[in-house]
Amino acid sequence: MQFFAEPLAKLIDELRRLPGIGAKTGQRLAFHILSMPQGDVKRLAEALMDARERIRSCSVCGNWTDGETCIVCSDPGRDRSCICVVERPEDVIAMERTREYRGVYHVLGAAISPMEGIGPGDIRLSELVDRVKRGNVREVIIATNPNTEGEVTAVYIANLLRPLKVEVSRIAHGLPVGGDLEYADEVTLARALEGRRGM
Amino acid sequence: MQFFAEPLAKLIDELRRLPGIGAKTGQRLAFHILSMPQGDVKRLAEALMDARERIRSCSVCGNWTDGETCIVCSDPGRDRSCICVVERPEDVIAMERTREYRGVYHVLGAAISPMEGIGPGDIRLSELVDRVKRGNVREVIIATNPNTEGEVTAVYIANLLRPLKVEVSRIAHGLPVGGDLEYADEVTLARALEGRRGM
Repeated sequence: MQFFAEPLAKLIDELRRLPGIGAKTGQRLAFHILSMPQGDVKRLAEALMDARERIRSCSVCGNWTDGETCIVCSDPGRDRSCICVVERPEDVIAMERTREYRGVYHVLGAAISPMEGIGPGDIRLSELVDRVKRGNVREVIIATNPNTEGEVTAVYIANLLRPLKVEVSRIAHGLPVGGDLEYADEVTLARALEGRRGM
Repeated sequence: MQFFAEPLAKLIDELRRLPGIGAKTGQRLAFHILSMPQGDVKRLAEALMDARERIRSCSVCGNWTDGETCIVCSDPGRDRSCICVVERPEDVIAMERTREYRGVYHVLGAAISPMEGIGPGDIRLSELVDRVKRGNVREVIIATNPNTEGEVTAVYIANLLRPLKVEVSRIAHGLPVGGDLEYADEVTLARALEGRRGM
């Protein structure tokens, strides 16, 4: 038995594809959307398309941007001699929230994960090496997630950068082990940054 | 400090307007959307617009439909002599899920609520009276929510329909199936006791 009119059923179906949205939430959201002014729904639909079409990777660090370079890389006030290496663009946001870090970033795209078939060649490591080789880089702070994949990636990067005579550090384990950088609170993340050690 | 590129910030902002979606969830959904194939995002955006544009009220019962009458009212197999009165279209879905009810519906749009400034003239009561007056209605089952507003509305409808010589009933109050007697509130338990039936 089909309970919903077809456009409504289709909307619920599309909403349910989003992470963390099940049958009940999808239905609740769809019902809410039907009660929204048409202009608001149009604005939401356009924001979806617009973000997906216009957001791409920063040509320098791999962070999300709607221009050629991202907000951080475009900022003349940032310290380009210090590169913070993170797994994903959402981690840049998490780091920026600390308001403690004044350097720039390098987004790997993922961590090395043999389980998921992600090897060193699948993440943006050669771009990182190139950036460091181009010179004027004093320190590379590795801020991959504090889990197995993140640690493996950190060690791999440290070994990779060793011949380049650059200082390599790892953010401190002030972060709960097994956690996710994206969801860490600002204070913990700031402490982790502050307590980084050479490796 | 603006952490996000403008189209991304706008998308998060639009997502946060939806019920139950806060800053973190909005961000998580937006990040997921950026990683989705462009075709999937387009389909979601179109589903949003399409549902909002095409879904309207059934001319008979007020349920949602993309045609002139809703799925229930269009079904020749439904018993038109029995009308179940509910507050909102989502309540029709809840009733349909039981697969027990073979009559038709009447959606009020809301319950009478002096606190929210919703009076009897603001909900679809005259339409209900018209339907009953048109004849061939044997029973009206009032399935408004079991809260103060729903009860007030139920009593109001019962009084309204009394001169029309139609049977008016109210869905039973009692313990939810699978519930626990120990944790039931007093009012529910009193109602369950009051509504006991021989077995």
